[in-house]
Amino acid sequence: MTDLNIDDILAEYDTSNITIATVCSHSSLQLFHGAKQEGFKTLGIAVGEERRRFYDAFPKAKPDEFLMVDNYQDILDLTSELQEKNAVIIPHGSFVEYLGADKFLSLNLPTFGNRNVLRWESDRNIERKWLESAGLTMPREVKNPKNIESPVIVKYHGAKGGRGFFIAKTYEEFQKRIQPKKPYTIQEFVMGTRYYLHYFYSPIQNNAYKLNKGSLQMLSIDRRDETTIDEVQRLGSIAELEEIGIHPTFVVTGNIPIVLRESLLPKVFKMGEQVVERSLDLFGGIIGSFCLETVVTENLEFKVFEISARIVAGTNPYVNGSPYSDLIEPGLSTGKRIAQEIKYAAKTDQLNEILS
Amino acid sequence: MTDLNIDDILAEYDTSNITIATVCSHSSLQLFHGAKQEGFKTLGIAVGEERRRFYDAFPKAKPDEFLMVDNYQDILDLTSELQEKNAVIIPHGSFVEYLGADKFLSLNLPTFGNRNVLRWESDRNIERKWLESAGLTMPREVKNPKNIESPVIVKYHGAKGGRGFFIAKTYEEFQKRIQPKKPYTIQEFVMGTRYYLHYFYSPIQNNAYKLNKGSLQMLSIDRRDETTIDEVQRLGSIAELEEIGIHPTFVVTGNIPIVLRESLLPKVFKMGEQVVERSLDLFGGIIGSFCLETVVTENLEFKVFEISARIVAGTNPYVNGSPYSDLIEPGLSTGKRIAQEIKYAAKTDQLNEILS
Amino acid sequence: MTDLNIDDILAEYDTSNITIATVCSHSSLQLFHGAKQEGFKTLGIAVGEERRRFYDAFPKAKPDEFLMVDNYQDILDLTSELQEKNAVIIPHGSFVEYLGADKFLSLNLPTFGNRNVLRWESDRNIERKWLESAGLTMPREVKNPKNIESPVIVKYHGAKGGRGFFIAKTYEEFQKRIQPKKPYTIQEFVMGTRYYLHYFYSPIQNNAYKLNKGSLQMLSIDRRDETTIDEVQRLGSIAELEEIGIHPTFVVTGNIPIVLRESLLPKVFKMGEQVVERSLDLFGGIIGSFCLETVVTENLEFKVFEISARIVAGTNPYVNGSPYSDLIEPGLSTGKRIAQEIKYAAKTDQLNEILS
Repeated sequence: MTDLNIDDILAEYDTSNITIATVCSHSSLQLFHGAKQEGFKTLGIAVGEERRRFYDAFPKAKPDEFLMVDNYQDILDLTSELQEKNAVIIPHGSFVEYLGADKFLSLNLPTFGNRNVLRWESDRNIERKWLESAGLTMPREVKNPKNIESPVIVKYHGAKGGRGFFIAKTYEEFQKRIQPKKPYTIQEFVMGTRYYLHYFYSPIQNNAYKLNKGSLQMLSIDRRDETTIDEVQRLGSIAELEEIGIHPTFVVTGNIPIVLRESLLPKVFKMGEQVVERSLDLFGGIIGSFCLETVVTENLEFKVFEISARIVAGTNPYVNGSPYSDLIEPGLSTGKRIAQEIKYAAKTDQLNEILS
Repeated sequence: MTDLNIDDILAEYDTSNITIATVCSHSSLQLFHGAKQEGFKTLGIAVGEERRRFYDAFPKAKPDEFLMVDNYQDILDLTSELQEKNAVIIPHGSFVEYLGADKFLSLNLPTFGNRNVLRWESDRNIERKWLESAGLTMPREVKNPKNIESPVIVKYHGAKGGRGFFIAKTYEEFQKRIQPKKPYTIQEFVMGTRYYLHYFYSPIQNNAYKLNKGSLQMLSIDRRDETTIDEVQRLGSIAELEEIGIHPTFVVTGNIPIVLRESLLPKVFKMGEQVVERSLDLFGGIIGSFCLETVVTENLEFKVFEISARIVAGTNPYVNGSPYSDLIEPGLSTGKRIAQEIKYAAKTDQLNEILS
Repeated sequence: MTDLNIDDILAEYDTSNITIATVCSHSSLQLFHGAKQEGFKTLGIAVGEERRRFYDAFPKAKPDEFLMVDNYQDILDLTSELQEKNAVIIPHGSFVEYLGADKFLSLNLPTFGNRNVLRWESDRNIERKWLESAGLTMPREVKNPKNIESPVIVKYHGAKGGRGFFIAKTYEEFQKRIQPKKPYTIQEFVMGTRYYLHYFYSPIQNNAYKLNKGSLQMLSIDRRDETTIDEVQRLGSIAELEEIGIHPTFVVTGNIPIVLRESLLPKVFKMGEQVVERSLDLFGGIIGSFCLETVVTENLEFKVFEISARIVAGTNPYVNGSPYSDLIEPGLSTGKRIAQEIKYAAKTDQLNEILS
């Protein structure tokens, strides 16, 4: 599905002897654990002894071998070595971030999922086109700050980890906070409770919620825990804090397990279906794990503020099953589900359908 | 226990071949899962294809068959068909709401629990009589708004899903917010952390916390997640928001798992005991699942602001066991516990003790 | 490791027939459950029938026998009886609190862990010396209230359960709230999300994260739930509430499961290692369970505001395993891990390495 010769590489692979590989971060404990549960060899790519050492404390998730590198870009020089191990890469958010989008796209190794999705999620405008044309509702954009009539969230372009974000309830608040000469986007701040929905789309299996091609699962839900915004109320209201020069940040530090009101599940599956069907039209499909990041309003409507097109760290509370995945198979994690998909594709000679 | 001839219906049942039935919403995944675990046939009642379709994604919870209806009141016309299947209804909150209290009370099918409890929980004054006469402490009522001396919550009569509720700290705030000519109730707003305690009372088994008749379990605890109130602090304090015309709502969107300080468990069981013993005196007993909705104050006292007299959606995080139910039997959910009770009653010919 | 003749007592024990004993509170359900899983006899020490009775509802955690006392100090008079049962005490926070530190230190029974740690954690200044000399970062102390330049938390000496604590953002706020003639400490209020890290250090096993002597595990993480501070935002900002005479409190009422951003785990293990290595130098080591209570700042740095040197109630959500411990052994709780350590030490004749 990319410009690379992944099919040629796969043709050389001993698909009965695949090694699951990823970078030692993000959701790697879960990914290695799931891969081991399904009988795969595992390989962890790490920079620095500290990244390697703590796996000793988690024997069921410790990869069979480590590939120690000086920096993550070195992976690009080690593709032959990895190909010899029949390595399949499971990319996660940190994998893509550490390697850089361009280098990730040119990585000459079979990776789980469709790498083309990166072009559709890394630009906010293109992402919006995808999701809105799929029928999902996103928070409105406010083009002119003078039109701020209800709370908005202002995001500087390229701001990392939400540290540049701020919330404004009025134009006056916006003026007080905005920094000169920095490009920004203004988005409606949707009030409501946040739910991060973890889906799994298989183009090759039909044993779940059926789509035109393949089928859809919803494996778990979490709420992200963000510093400092999520405990800011211990100190005061945001307005009070900003007056004394303290600005809340939106840096993710962890994840809390949660379940959703059951009557909303039909909508959850409908949204997942729409996103997948549209992705098949647009770029060959969002394969495997993805996450819709949503707010549920007081009218019980979902507003989708972002999509993550691969495994999210929000699945980490569910290393040994979730209240949803346990209804598929007891103890099923997203990591295990991914390993099952690769195993099934290898057995039925369809790896090129799920790797790119 | 009702005016219906449930005993006569049961007399005709093949109790070795019961079908567990409920409406496809609320906690139905858990109920079907638990029923299947205990070997029952299962039947889901649903309006609309979307309600049916997502069960395909959860094979261990998908009912064996669906009864598709145009609206939920149609169930009343299908009782013969359901009786032929030896159907036992597990009512949950949405079941009662969709059908309507009157129609639920007149439904000519064996339902789990004591339907008479509905008369005691649907009217706030009668509910208060039950709980206070049982020895539980509830938030004070404030009869005259001029007497507001500490924070209160104001509830319009018949307001749905907490959308009409508001909080006032003073009489002035009350005056600013109150709408003319709408009847309301004013209740002390109790400050503290909320715990929703999920009990199970069996009148026919004695293998747990023993009561005069039968025994009591506590299977799990959750905290409800309510939009928009539970993430309102991301934007500002309630007073700040109300000034710009934003009023928080209390609409339930999900549930978060939680455990309680262990030294409070004796009080938890005492409260459960008092509620059950009193219910036996008043109306034949609250049978099966119920939930006390509580606030724990800074003095570690429980204030009970509501009772739910059947399975609550707060048990949904625990489809595969909770930190409490795992100490009874690994993987025990409330749904499974209900199925066990029906199975035991059927085997020992005591179904009329737990169905009504 | 204490002045007591614990080694002599142990020499008389039938170590193939140990009874695990603790006070019926705090984390006792988990401790009894874990001990029973590992095949130990169990004994619960309780004051009052209500403390005994609710265990009937949790058969897998109900101790084999109870020792009913009039008050917890009576344990001191019952040591011979307990020694005859080959009792090993697992102390938890309530055990130490109910008995009193002095009496706990003089208790003539083998207790799990190193009792000497109590001298290092019960005094805030000594605790600070330990943790800071271990290389951990703690919130700054503010010696003079006039130097308050950013939010602080003010703690009266000997205040129980956090009820005397208050937060001040300025010197003016401090002056408004401070009570005359009460000694206090002022600590920087660190903004961020709280994570309570549950470690286990074994001086006698080497199958985890290796230290100079023994090895380290991280079994789970929780967030404490504190009344009224954690739901105060439902009513208003702290400043608004204090104006009308409502002061938030920090009384623990429960625990919420949570996972941490995986890229922070190397730091988590490093901190644990530093604390243990330093404790070995200072007082013979912190043996078994301990907890670092941390805040993660917007720069993803840990500030450690406290250490608990034994099992914490924050492990209670994980009676049947956590997203971390499941990667060691499915279903592993801290209670079970402690029982395993005692079992292994008994088998290898090293009980004196882990008991004191």
